[in-house]
Amino acid sequence: MELKSFISLDEAIKKSLKYKPKAGSKNVTAMDAVGQYSLEEVVSPTYYPQFDRSAVDGYAVDSKETISSNKTNPAKFELIGNLYPSSREKLRIGKGKAVKVMTGSRIPIGADSVVMLEDSFEDGTNLSVFVPVRKFQNISRKGEDLKKGFPILKKGKRVDPPHVSALVECGIEKVKVLSLSIGIVSTGDELVSGSIRNSTLPLVQSFFQRKGFRVVGHGAVEDNELSIERVLGTMKEDIIIVTGGTGPGEKDLLPAIIERNGSFVFRGLRIRPGRTTSFGIFRGKIAFLISGLPVAALIASENVILRLIHEWYGLIVEEKEQRNGIMGRSVVNTLGFRSFVRVKVKNERGVTKVYPSRVTGSGVIYSVIDADGMLVIDENSEGIEEGESVTFEVLRW
Amino acid sequence: MELKSFISLDEAIKKSLKYKPKAGSKNVTAMDAVGQYSLEEVVSPTYYPQFDRSAVDGYAVDSKETISSNKTNPAKFELIGNLYPSSREKLRIGKGKAVKVMTGSRIPIGADSVVMLEDSFEDGTNLSVFVPVRKFQNISRKGEDLKKGFPILKKGKRVDPPHVSALVECGIEKVKVLSLSIGIVSTGDELVSGSIRNSTLPLVQSFFQRKGFRVVGHGAVEDNELSIERVLGTMKEDIIIVTGGTGPGEKDLLPAIIERNGSFVFRGLRIRPGRTTSFGIFRGKIAFLISGLPVAALIASENVILRLIHEWYGLIVEEKEQRNGIMGRSVVNTLGFRSFVRVKVKNERGVTKVYPSRVTGSGVIYSVIDADGMLVIDENSEGIEEGESVTFEVLRW
Repeated sequence: MELKSFISLDEAIKKSLKYKPKAGSKNVTAMDAVGQYSLEEVVSPTYYPQFDRSAVDGYAVDSKETISSNKTNPAKFELIGNLYPSSREKLRIGKGKAVKVMTGSRIPIGADSVVMLEDSFEDGTNLSVFVPVRKFQNISRKGEDLKKGFPILKKGKRVDPPHVSALVECGIEKVKVLSLSIGIVSTGDELVSGSIRNSTLPLVQSFFQRKGFRVVGHGAVEDNELSIERVLGTMKEDIIIVTGGTGPGEKDLLPAIIERNGSFVFRGLRIRPGRTTSFGIFRGKIAFLISGLPVAALIASENVILRLIHEWYGLIVEEKEQRNGIMGRSVVNTLGFRSFVRVKVKNERGVTKVYPSRVTGSGVIYSVIDADGMLVIDENSEGIEEGESVTFEVLRW
Repeated sequence: MELKSFISLDEAIKKSLKYKPKAGSKNVTAMDAVGQYSLEEVVSPTYYPQFDRSAVDGYAVDSKETISSNKTNPAKFELIGNLYPSSREKLRIGKGKAVKVMTGSRIPIGADSVVMLEDSFEDGTNLSVFVPVRKFQNISRKGEDLKKGFPILKKGKRVDPPHVSALVECGIEKVKVLSLSIGIVSTGDELVSGSIRNSTLPLVQSFFQRKGFRVVGHGAVEDNELSIERVLGTMKEDIIIVTGGTGPGEKDLLPAIIERNGSFVFRGLRIRPGRTTSFGIFRGKIAFLISGLPVAALIASENVILRLIHEWYGLIVEEKEQRNGIMGRSVVNTLGFRSFVRVKVKNERGVTKVYPSRVTGSGVIYSVIDADGMLVIDENSEGIEEGESVTFEVLRW
C-alpha cells in the first residue's frame, strides 16, 4: 500500500459508482417500511379528505347566518339531525337549520362552517350560536391534506412516521423498499485470542443498523489467508465489510486475497482518519476493507460506504445540522488529505468557540462520544488558524 | 370537556410528574442496548489503551536518534524483533535498535515513537529512517482514549453506536436500560367499519418505536363503553394511549370510562393542535387520551407523552436543530394557547423566509411531510407578524 497510490475521497467515489452491487427490493407494509428506504415515488391516488368534513365537534351551519351573532343576541337555528364520522348520508340544510357534527363528519350540503360546542348552546331541538363563524371555519376541506398526485414519499427517501400515516390514509398498503444486507467480519489474531477486544465490529454493525440496513456480524477470524478467504466465501450478504488487515504491514493478508479472487477498485484514501480504506471485488462481490481502529472505521463507514450506498441506490441523504463557530485552537492538516476532526464547543462570553480534539489517534472512540461535532477540513487546506470562522457538523446517529 | 378547565402544557407536565408509571429495567448486551436508554452512569473501569501502543504499522524507535534524519542521510537502526498486537512480550531497546510494530502493538521500553513504513526502508536486519519523528509520534498513549473513571455513558442517555464501541473496549458486557412498553388502541365506529382508515395508530406507534420503545398496537375498538373498557383492561403495557374519543361530543365515551375506573390528572390542554389531550388513571395505570387526528396525535405524542417519559425517567433529550429565519407571512395565535405551526422555508435572495402552513387542520399529515420545520408559538403571543425574526425546529424522526 503505497501512499502515492492513495486517491482522494471524491475520486474514489467516482471510480466506485459503476460497481453498484445488485440489491433486492421488497414490498412491505407501510408500518414495516418505517426506517427503510423507498425505491419508488408514491403519489396520492386520491383526495384526502375525500369530502369537506368537520375539524371539530359542533354544529354545521351557513356562516352568513352568524354574521351578527353575539352573547346577548345569538343566531338561532333548528337542529335537524346528527352526523357521525361513520355516517354515509348526504344531509342538506336550508335557512335557519343546523346539523350536529363530530370531528370527521361530512359537512351537509348548504352548510359552510362549523360552530364549536363551547360557542353555542342547544336544548336538543334549538341551537343558539354566540359568535360569528367565517366561511369554511372548522372545516377540513376536500383534498386539504392530500390532493390526487401529491408526492407522499419521494424515491430514495427514508420512511418516517408521518409517511406511514399518509400512506394508510390513501389506502396504499405496500411500499417497495431497498433490501440491502451488509456482512461484517473482523480480522486479527489479537481479536481471536481475546488479547484485544473487538470494539470495531459492533460499532460498524450498529452504525449501519441505525441507518436502517440489515447487518450480520460474522465475528473475528485469525490472520491466515486461507481462513479469511474461507469466511469471505461463505458471506451471503450484498456488501462485505472487513475490518482490520488493511495496512501495509506484513500481517495484512487482505490485499493478496482480493488480488487472487478479484481486484481492487481503490486501495488507500487521502482521508484522515481512515486512510487505509480500500474497496475491492471478491469473487464478484463488493468488499470494503476498513481499519480495525474504531474511529477510522466509523469515518470510513459514514463517508465512504454509506455515501456510496446513497449514490448507488439514489437514496436521499438526511441533511446534517451545521453550526458555526470560531476556532479556539489551531489545527493542522496534511495537504492533499481530507481530515475529519472531532470538535468540542464552548460558549465563551457569547462566542461559540470550536476546539479540535487534541487526540488524533484513530482508535480514540471516546473523542467521538465526548465530541459536539465533526469538522471536515478540505484537501487543499493546510489547516485552520485559531480565530478563523468554521462550520462543523453536529454528530447524530 | 370545558375550555375553561384546559390547562397550559407546562402546568400539565408539572401536575403529571408524580404519576410516574413503574417501568422495568433490563440488563442487555452493549449491542442490544443501541437505541435504548441507559438507566445507569457507566464509567470506564480501566485505562484504554492499557499501555502505549503503535497507531500505525512501522518501527518503534527512540525519537532522539532521528533528529537529523533525511533522505540522503537517514538514521540507521538494527532491527531486533517484531511485535504484533497480540504479542504479550515487553521488549526493551537500546541505542541504535528498533523493533517492527503493527497498529496496536505494545511499544517496547526505550522507544518513544513509531516511524511509518513509507518513511523508511528495511532489509530484514537494518532499517533506514528518512524523516525525523517527534516524541510520541504515531503512538496511542496509555489512557489516551479512556481514562479510568471517564463517563462513557451518562444516565438517561440513549445508547449510540460509539458508546457500544467504548463499552466493549473496557469489557463492560451488560448495560441496564429502561424497559418501558406502550400500548395503543384507537376508538371509533368509523375505524372499525373501515369507513375511515386508521392512519393515527401506525403514526403514533412508529413514532414511539423510532424513539426506542416497545410499542404494541391493539387495533381499533367500536364506540361502546363496555367494549372500550374491556380492551383497556386487557392491555398489559406500562403506558396506555387511546386515540380518538377525547372530544366533547356525545360519542366520546372515554371520560366516563376513566371516571368510573380511576380519575383524570388533566383534561384538555391549551395547545394547538392537540387541545383534547388528556391524562387519566385507569385502574391504577397511566392512560393518555389523544386526538384521533394524525397531526394532533403526533404533537401530543411528542410534546406531552414523550416529554413526560423523559421527565419521569430522567432521560436525556436529544437537542433539536434550531434554525432562524424571517416570517414570510403572518400567523395568528389564540392567546393562552401554545401553537405548533408547521413551516416551509424558502431562500429568497439570500434571506431565509419562513412560511407557516396555510392549513390549520389537525388531520393534515401532508403538512408535516411537506414541512421543513415546526414553529412553536408561545402562550403569551397573539401571533407573529410578517417580517419578524423567528427560530424554528427542524423536523427529525
